[in-house]
Amino acid sequence: MGSTRRIFTFDRVSADGYFSALDGNLNWAVPDDEVDNEGVAQMPDAGTILFGRRTYEMFESFWPKVADGQPMAPDPHRPARQTAAMHAMAVWINEAEKLVFSRTRKEFPWKNSRLLGELEAGKVEALKNQPGKDMIIFGSGSIVSELTTHGLIDEYQFVVNPVLLGSGRSLISGVGQNLKLKLLEAKTYNSGNVRLRYARQN
Amino acid sequence: MGSTRRIFTFDRVSADGYFSALDGNLNWAVPDDEVDNEGVAQMPDAGTILFGRRTYEMFESFWPKVADGQPMAPDPHRPARQTAAMHAMAVWINEAEKLVFSRTRKEFPWKNSRLLGELEAGKVEALKNQPGKDMIIFGSGSIVSELTTHGLIDEYQFVVNPVLLGSGRSLISGVGQNLKLKLLEAKTYNSGNVRLRYARQN
Repeated sequence: MGSTRRIFTFDRVSADGYFSALDGNLNWAVPDDEVDNEGVAQMPDAGTILFGRRTYEMFESFWPKVADGQPMAPDPHRPARQTAAMHAMAVWINEAEKLVFSRTRKEFPWKNSRLLGELEAGKVEALKNQPGKDMIIFGSGSIVSELTTHGLIDEYQFVVNPVLLGSGRSLISGVGQNLKLKLLEAKTYNSGNVRLRYARQN
Repeated sequence: MGSTRRIFTFDRVSADGYFSALDGNLNWAVPDDEVDNEGVAQMPDAGTILFGRRTYEMFESFWPKVADGQPMAPDPHRPARQTAAMHAMAVWINEAEKLVFSRTRKEFPWKNSRLLGELEAGKVEALKNQPGKDMIIFGSGSIVSELTTHGLIDEYQFVVNPVLLGSGRSLISGVGQNLKLKLLEAKTYNSGNVRLRYARQN
Protein backbone atom coordinates (compact mmCIF):
# COMPACT_ATOMS: atom_id res chain seq x y z
CA MET A 1 0.00 0.00 0.00
CA GLY A 2 3.10 2.21 -0.02
CA SER A 3 2.62 5.53 1.73
CA THR A 4 -1.12 5.31 2.23
CA ARG A 5 -2.56 5.69 5.71
CA ARG A 6 -2.73 2.42 7.62
CA ILE A 7 -5.89 1.02 9.18
CA PHE A 8 -5.69 -1.20 12.22
CA THR A 9 -8.26 -2.85 14.46
CA PHE A 10 -8.05 -3.13 18.25
CA ASP A 11 -10.35 -5.47 20.13
CA ARG A 12 -10.61 -7.32 23.35
CA VAL A 13 -11.78 -10.85 22.58
CA SER A 14 -12.67 -13.78 24.79
CA ALA A 15 -10.73 -17.05 24.72
CA ASP A 16 -13.70 -18.55 22.89
CA GLY A 17 -13.41 -15.96 20.17
CA TYR A 18 -16.11 -13.35 20.80
CA PHE A 19 -15.58 -9.59 20.85
CA SER A 20 -18.80 -8.80 22.67
CA ALA A 21 -21.64 -10.51 24.45
CA LEU A 22 -24.81 -10.93 22.40
CA ASP A 23 -26.23 -7.70 23.88
CA GLY A 24 -23.02 -5.74 23.22
CA ASN A 25 -21.90 -6.01 26.83
CA LEU A 26 -18.14 -5.62 27.34
CA ASN A 27 -18.06 -5.94 31.13
CA TRP A 28 -16.50 -9.40 30.92
CA ALA A 29 -13.13 -7.92 29.91
CA VAL A 30 -10.36 -8.52 32.43
CA PRO A 31 -9.13 -5.12 33.67
CA ASP A 32 -5.51 -4.60 32.73
CA ASP A 33 -3.72 -1.27 33.21
CA GLU A 34 -0.71 -2.60 31.32
CA VAL A 35 -2.79 -3.25 28.21
CA ASP A 36 -4.58 0.09 28.61
CA ASN A 37 -1.30 1.99 28.95
CA GLU A 38 0.15 0.37 25.86
CA GLY A 39 -3.06 1.08 24.00
CA VAL A 40 -2.83 4.75 24.89
CA ALA A 41 0.86 4.84 23.98
CA GLN A 42 0.17 3.73 20.41
CA MET A 43 -2.79 6.04 19.96
CA PRO A 44 -0.91 9.17 18.88
CA ASP A 45 -0.18 7.32 15.65
CA ALA A 46 -3.90 7.07 14.94
CA GLY A 47 -5.68 10.37 14.48
CA THR A 48 -8.91 8.95 13.12
CA ILE A 49 -11.38 6.38 14.38
CA LEU A 50 -13.73 4.59 11.98
CA PHE A 51 -16.99 3.48 13.54
CA GLY A 52 -20.09 1.51 12.84
CA ARG A 53 -23.10 3.19 14.40
CA ARG A 54 -23.62 0.60 17.10
CA THR A 55 -20.09 0.79 18.50
CA TYR A 56 -20.11 4.58 18.09
CA GLU A 57 -23.18 4.89 20.28
CA MET A 58 -21.69 2.64 22.92
CA PHE A 59 -18.55 4.79 22.97
CA GLU A 60 -20.60 7.99 22.94
CA SER A 61 -22.47 6.92 26.07
CA PHE A 62 -19.29 6.03 27.93
CA TRP A 63 -16.03 7.80 27.04
CA PRO A 64 -17.08 11.46 27.32
CA LYS A 65 -17.98 10.79 30.96
CA VAL A 66 -14.58 9.25 31.58
CA ALA A 67 -12.91 12.22 29.88
CA ASP A 68 -14.83 14.60 32.13
CA GLY A 69 -13.75 12.64 35.20
CA GLN A 70 -17.39 12.15 36.16
CA PRO A 71 -18.05 9.52 38.78
CA MET A 72 -18.91 6.45 36.78
CA ALA A 73 -22.59 5.64 36.72
CA PRO A 74 -23.16 1.90 36.77
CA ASP A 75 -22.86 1.00 33.12
CA PRO A 76 -23.78 -2.38 31.69
CA HIS A 77 -21.23 -2.00 28.93
CA ARG A 78 -18.05 -1.58 30.96
CA PRO A 79 -16.44 -2.67 34.19
CA ALA A 80 -17.02 0.04 36.79
CA ARG A 81 -13.57 1.54 37.17
CA GLN A 82 -11.54 4.48 36.07
CA THR A 83 -7.77 4.53 35.93
CA ALA A 84 -5.22 7.03 34.67
CA ALA A 85 -4.84 4.96 31.51
CA MET A 86 -8.59 4.96 30.91
CA HIS A 87 -8.73 8.72 31.41
CA ALA A 88 -5.89 9.25 28.94
CA MET A 89 -7.68 7.05 26.43
CA ALA A 90 -10.91 8.97 26.96
CA VAL A 91 -9.17 12.28 26.30
CA TRP A 92 -7.58 10.87 23.15
CA ILE A 93 -10.91 9.50 21.86
CA ASN A 94 -12.62 12.81 22.59
CA GLU A 95 -10.09 14.69 20.46
CA ALA A 96 -9.75 12.14 17.65
CA GLU A 97 -11.60 12.50 14.38
CA LYS A 98 -14.57 10.11 14.57
CA LEU A 99 -15.97 8.99 11.22
CA VAL A 100 -19.23 7.08 11.46
CA PHE A 101 -20.87 4.81 8.90
CA SER A 102 -24.65 4.87 9.30
CA ARG A 103 -27.64 4.77 7.00
CA THR A 104 -30.06 6.00 9.65
CA ARG A 105 -28.58 8.47 12.08
CA LYS A 106 -28.12 12.08 10.98
CA GLU A 107 -26.96 14.07 14.04
CA PHE A 108 -23.57 13.59 15.64
CA PRO A 109 -23.12 16.06 18.48
CA TRP A 110 -20.04 14.35 20.02
CA LYS A 111 -16.89 16.37 19.36
CA ASN A 112 -15.09 15.81 16.04
CA SER A 113 -17.69 13.34 14.78
CA ARG A 114 -18.68 13.19 11.14
CA LEU A 115 -21.18 11.07 9.20
CA LEU A 116 -19.84 9.09 6.26
CA GLY A 117 -23.22 7.62 5.31
CA GLU A 118 -23.49 4.10 4.03
CA LEU A 119 -20.37 1.93 4.19
CA GLU A 120 -18.62 1.75 0.85
CA ALA A 121 -15.13 0.43 0.36
CA GLY A 122 -14.38 3.25 -2.08
CA LYS A 123 -14.90 5.85 0.64
CA VAL A 124 -12.34 4.13 2.82
CA GLU A 125 -9.88 3.77 -0.06
CA ALA A 126 -10.22 7.50 -0.61
CA LEU A 127 -9.51 8.15 3.08
CA LYS A 128 -6.41 5.96 2.91
CA ASN A 129 -5.09 7.99 0.01
CA GLN A 130 -5.59 11.31 1.77
CA PRO A 131 -2.73 12.68 3.85
CA GLY A 132 -3.18 12.01 7.55
CA LYS A 133 -2.38 9.75 10.45
CA ASP A 134 -3.27 6.09 10.85
CA MET A 135 -6.89 5.07 11.35
CA ILE A 136 -8.15 2.71 14.05
CA ILE A 137 -11.32 0.69 14.34
CA PHE A 138 -12.67 -0.47 17.70
CA GLY A 139 -15.39 -3.12 17.57
CA SER A 140 -17.65 -2.26 14.62
CA GLY A 141 -17.87 -5.84 13.36
CA SER A 142 -19.79 -5.06 10.19
CA ILE A 143 -17.23 -2.42 9.16
CA VAL A 144 -14.28 -4.70 9.92
CA SER A 145 -15.88 -7.54 7.98
CA GLU A 146 -16.55 -5.40 4.92
CA LEU A 147 -13.10 -3.81 4.90
CA THR A 148 -11.49 -7.22 5.38
CA THR A 149 -13.27 -8.41 2.24
CA HIS A 150 -11.67 -5.55 0.35
CA GLY A 151 -8.20 -6.02 1.86
CA LEU A 152 -8.27 -2.56 3.38
CA ILE A 153 -7.19 -3.44 6.92
CA ASP A 154 -3.43 -3.52 7.44
CA GLU A 155 -3.19 -4.81 10.98
CA TYR A 156 -5.43 -6.68 13.40
CA GLN A 157 -4.84 -6.46 17.14
CA PHE A 158 -6.61 -8.82 19.51
CA VAL A 159 -6.26 -8.85 23.28
CA VAL A 160 -7.33 -12.38 24.14
CA ASN A 161 -8.87 -12.32 27.62
CA PRO A 162 -8.73 -15.37 29.94
CA VAL A 163 -12.50 -15.69 29.90
CA LEU A 164 -15.00 -17.93 28.16
CA LEU A 165 -18.00 -15.84 27.19
CA GLY A 166 -20.05 -18.90 26.32
CA SER A 167 -21.95 -17.01 23.65
CA GLY A 168 -21.47 -13.75 21.86
CA ARG A 169 -20.75 -11.95 18.64
CA SER A 170 -17.88 -12.68 16.26
CA LEU A 171 -15.94 -9.63 15.10
CA ILE A 172 -15.69 -10.89 11.53
CA SER A 173 -18.50 -12.72 9.79
CA GLY A 174 -19.98 -13.10 6.35
CA VAL A 175 -16.58 -12.78 4.68
CA GLY A 176 -16.39 -15.28 1.86
CA GLN A 177 -12.69 -16.02 1.67
CA ASN A 178 -9.89 -16.97 4.06
CA LEU A 179 -7.10 -14.48 4.61
CA LYS A 180 -3.59 -15.46 5.64
CA LEU A 181 -2.02 -13.23 8.26
CA LYS A 182 1.51 -12.69 9.50
CA LEU A 183 1.95 -12.85 13.28
CA LEU A 184 3.83 -9.72 14.33
CA GLU A 185 3.73 -10.14 18.11
CA ALA A 186 2.34 -12.31 20.87
CA LYS A 187 2.69 -10.72 24.28
CA THR A 188 1.54 -12.13 27.60
CA TYR A 189 0.44 -9.93 30.51
CA ASN A 190 0.30 -10.70 34.23
CA SER A 191 -3.49 -10.56 34.08
CA GLY A 192 -3.54 -13.54 31.74
CA ASN A 193 -4.40 -11.35 28.78
CA VAL A 194 -2.46 -12.11 25.58
CA ARG A 195 -2.08 -9.52 22.87
CA LEU A 196 -1.82 -10.89 19.32
CA ARG A 197 -0.85 -8.53 16.51
CA TYR A 198 -1.19 -9.60 12.88
CA ALA A 199 -0.44 -7.97 9.55
CA ARG A 200 -2.36 -8.69 6.40
CA GLN A 201 -0.24 -10.72 3.98
CA ASN A 202 -0.05 -8.86 0.72
CA MET B 1 -11.77 -32.24 41.46
CA GLY B 2 -9.02 -34.05 43.40
CA SER B 3 -8.00 -37.33 41.81
CA THR B 4 -10.71 -37.49 39.18
CA ARG B 5 -9.76 -37.90 35.53
CA ARG B 6 -9.12 -34.62 33.80
CA ILE B 7 -10.87 -33.52 30.59
CA PHE B 8 -9.15 -31.18 28.19
CA THR B 9 -10.02 -29.75 24.81
CA PHE B 10 -7.63 -29.31 21.90
CA ASP B 11 -8.60 -27.15 18.92
CA ARG B 12 -7.08 -25.23 16.12
CA VAL B 13 -8.86 -21.88 15.91
CA SER B 14 -8.59 -18.99 13.50
CA ALA B 15 -7.46 -15.52 14.59
CA ASP B 16 -11.08 -14.44 14.23
CA GLY B 17 -12.18 -17.08 16.69
CA TYR B 18 -13.65 -19.95 14.67
CA PHE B 19 -12.79 -23.63 15.09
CA SER B 20 -14.17 -24.69 11.73
CA ALA B 21 -15.56 -23.26 8.55
CA LEU B 22 -19.35 -23.27 8.27
CA ASP B 23 -19.21 -26.57 6.36
CA GLY B 24 -16.85 -28.19 8.88
CA ASN B 25 -13.84 -27.68 6.66
CA LEU B 26 -10.49 -27.62 8.50
CA ASN B 27 -8.23 -27.15 5.50
CA TRP B 28 -7.48 -23.53 6.47
CA ALA B 29 -5.25 -24.66 9.35
CA VAL B 30 -1.60 -23.67 8.95
CA PRO B 31 0.50 -26.86 8.82
CA ASP B 32 2.87 -27.01 11.77
CA ASP B 33 4.96 -30.08 12.56
CA GLU B 34 6.09 -28.50 15.82
CA VAL B 35 2.49 -28.22 17.06
CA ASP B 36 1.69 -31.71 15.79
CA ASN B 37 4.70 -33.22 17.56
CA GLU B 38 3.83 -31.56 20.83
CA GLY B 39 0.26 -32.70 20.44
CA VAL B 40 1.37 -36.29 19.99
CA ALA B 41 3.77 -35.99 22.93
CA GLN B 42 0.98 -35.10 25.34
CA MET B 43 -1.38 -37.76 24.01
CA PRO B 44 -0.17 -40.69 26.13
CA ASP B 45 -1.74 -38.92 29.09
CA ALA B 46 -5.14 -39.10 27.42
CA GLY B 47 -6.48 -42.58 26.85
CA THR B 48 -10.01 -41.60 25.95
CA ILE B 49 -11.51 -39.27 23.36
CA LEU B 50 -15.00 -37.84 23.82
CA PHE B 51 -16.80 -37.05 20.58
CA GLY B 52 -19.90 -35.46 19.23
CA ARG B 53 -21.18 -37.42 16.25
CA ARG B 54 -20.27 -34.81 13.68
CA THR B 55 -16.61 -34.55 14.66
CA TYR B 56 -16.45 -38.33 15.13
CA GLU B 57 -17.54 -38.92 11.55
CA MET B 58 -15.03 -36.42 10.24
CA PHE B 59 -12.27 -38.19 12.15
CA GLU B 60 -13.55 -41.60 11.08
CA SER B 61 -13.27 -40.65 7.41
CA PHE B 62 -9.75 -39.32 7.80
CA TRP B 63 -7.49 -40.74 10.50
CA PRO B 64 -7.75 -44.49 9.80
CA LYS B 65 -6.38 -43.78 6.31
CA VAL B 66 -3.46 -41.86 7.79
CA ALA B 67 -2.83 -44.67 10.26
CA ASP B 68 -2.75 -47.17 7.40
CA GLY B 69 -0.29 -45.00 5.52
CA GLN B 70 -2.66 -44.90 2.56
CA PRO B 71 -1.92 -42.27 -0.03
CA MET B 72 -4.14 -39.38 0.94
CA ALA B 73 -7.19 -38.95 -1.23
CA PRO B 74 -8.00 -35.29 -1.72
CA ASP B 75 -10.03 -34.50 1.37
CA PRO B 76 -11.99 -31.31 1.82
CA HIS B 77 -11.58 -31.46 5.57
CA ARG B 78 -7.80 -31.44 5.88
CA PRO B 79 -4.73 -30.09 4.15
CA ALA B 80 -3.36 -32.80 1.85
CA ARG B 81 -0.22 -33.85 3.65
CA GLN B 82 1.09 -36.59 5.85
CA THR B 83 4.01 -36.25 8.20
CA ALA B 84 5.57 -38.49 10.82
CA ALA B 85 3.75 -36.48 13.50
CA MET B 86 0.41 -36.95 11.74
CA HIS B 87 1.02 -40.67 11.40
CA ALA B 88 1.86 -40.98 15.09
CA MET B 89 -1.32 -39.07 15.95
CA ALA B 90 -3.35 -41.34 13.67
CA VAL B 91 -2.00 -44.45 15.37
CA TRP B 92 -2.77 -42.99 18.78
CA ILE B 93 -6.33 -42.06 17.78
CA ASN B 94 -6.90 -45.50 16.29
CA GLU B 95 -5.94 -47.16 19.57
CA ALA B 96 -7.61 -44.69 21.94
CA GLU B 97 -11.02 -45.38 23.47
CA LYS B 98 -13.51 -43.35 21.45
CA LEU B 99 -16.75 -42.49 23.25
CA VAL B 100 -19.42 -40.95 21.05
CA PHE B 101 -22.49 -38.98 22.03
CA SER B 102 -25.26 -39.47 19.46
CA ARG B 103 -29.02 -39.79 19.52
CA THR B 104 -29.23 -41.19 16.00
CA ARG B 105 -26.33 -43.39 15.02
CA LYS B 106 -26.19 -46.96 16.32
CA GLU B 107 -23.23 -48.69 14.62
CA PHE B 108 -19.62 -47.77 15.35
CA PRO B 109 -17.29 -50.09 13.46
CA TRP B 110 -14.14 -47.97 13.99
CA LYS B 111 -11.84 -49.65 16.48
CA ASN B 112 -12.43 -49.02 20.20
CA SER B 113 -15.53 -46.88 19.56
CA ARG B 114 -18.49 -46.97 21.88
CA LEU B 115 -21.86 -45.22 21.86
CA LEU B 116 -22.77 -43.20 24.94
CA GLY B 117 -26.19 -42.16 23.63
CA GLU B 118 -27.57 -38.73 24.35
CA LEU B 119 -25.25 -36.23 26.00
CA GLU B 120 -25.88 -35.98 29.73
CA ALA B 121 -23.53 -34.29 32.15
CA GLY B 122 -24.06 -37.10 34.65
CA LYS B 123 -22.57 -39.65 32.26
CA VAL B 124 -19.43 -37.56 31.99
CA GLU B 125 -19.23 -37.04 35.73
CA ALA B 126 -19.40 -40.81 36.12
CA LEU B 127 -16.57 -41.23 33.61
CA LYS B 128 -14.45 -38.71 35.51
CA ASN B 129 -14.90 -40.69 38.69
CA GLN B 130 -13.87 -43.98 37.10
CA PRO B 131 -10.21 -44.95 37.19
CA GLY B 132 -8.44 -44.19 33.93
CA LYS B 133 -6.33 -41.74 32.01
CA ASP B 134 -7.21 -38.20 31.02
CA MET B 135 -9.89 -37.57 28.42
CA ILE B 136 -9.55 -35.27 25.43
CA ILE B 137 -12.13 -33.60 23.21
CA PHE B 138 -11.33 -32.48 19.69
CA GLY B 139 -13.88 -30.17 18.06
CA SER B 140 -17.35 -31.37 19.12
CA GLY B 141 -18.67 -27.90 19.86
CA SER B 142 -22.00 -29.01 21.28
CA ILE B 143 -20.27 -31.37 23.73
CA VAL B 144 -17.73 -28.75 24.80
CA SER B 145 -20.49 -26.17 25.30
CA GLU B 146 -22.60 -28.49 27.42
CA LEU B 147 -19.69 -29.69 29.56
CA THR B 148 -18.50 -26.11 30.00
CA THR B 149 -21.92 -25.24 31.41
CA HIS B 150 -21.46 -27.97 33.99
CA GLY B 151 -17.85 -27.04 34.83
CA LEU B 152 -16.60 -30.45 33.71
CA ILE B 153 -13.74 -29.31 31.47
CA ASP B 154 -10.45 -28.81 33.30
CA GLU B 155 -8.30 -27.36 30.56
CA TYR B 156 -8.85 -25.66 27.21
CA GLN B 157 -6.12 -25.67 24.57
CA PHE B 158 -6.37 -23.43 21.53
CA VAL B 159 -3.83 -23.22 18.72
CA VAL B 160 -4.57 -19.80 17.25
CA ASN B 161 -3.72 -19.91 13.54
CA PRO B 162 -2.57 -16.78 11.66
CA VAL B 163 -5.62 -16.89 9.43
CA LEU B 164 -8.89 -15.00 9.25
CA LEU B 165 -11.62 -17.44 8.32
CA GLY B 166 -14.13 -14.67 7.68
CA SER B 167 -17.02 -16.85 8.76
CA GLY B 168 -17.34 -20.11 10.59
CA ARG B 169 -18.48 -21.94 13.68
CA SER B 170 -17.71 -20.98 17.26
CA LEU B 171 -16.51 -23.83 19.47
CA ILE B 172 -18.57 -22.70 22.44
CA SER B 173 -22.06 -21.26 22.08
CA GLY B 174 -25.33 -21.17 23.94
CA VAL B 175 -23.59 -21.18 27.32
CA GLY B 176 -25.42 -18.78 29.59
CA GLN B 177 -22.67 -17.63 31.93
CA ASN B 178 -19.12 -16.29 31.65
CA LEU B 179 -16.30 -18.42 32.96
CA LYS B 180 -12.99 -17.04 34.21
CA LEU B 181 -9.93 -18.98 33.11
CA LYS B 182 -6.31 -19.06 34.24
CA LEU B 183 -3.74 -18.70 31.47
CA LEU B 184 -1.26 -21.57 31.87
CA GLU B 185 0.87 -21.02 28.78
CA ALA B 186 1.15 -18.91 25.65
CA LYS B 187 3.66 -20.31 23.18
CA THR B 188 4.57 -18.91 19.78
CA TYR B 189 5.67 -21.12 16.88
CA ASN B 190 7.69 -20.23 13.79
CA SER B 191 4.61 -20.80 11.64
CA GLY B 192 2.83 -17.92 13.38
CA ASN B 193 0.65 -20.32 15.33
CA VAL B 194 0.19 -19.47 19.02
CA ARG B 195 -0.84 -22.10 21.51
CA LEU B 196 -2.91 -20.85 24.46
CA ARG B 197 -3.56 -23.18 27.37
CA TYR B 198 -6.11 -22.30 30.04
CA ALA B 199 -7.32 -23.96 33.22
CA ARG B 200 -10.81 -23.58 34.57
CA GLN B 201 -10.80 -21.42 37.70
CA ASN B 202 -12.39 -23.37 40.49
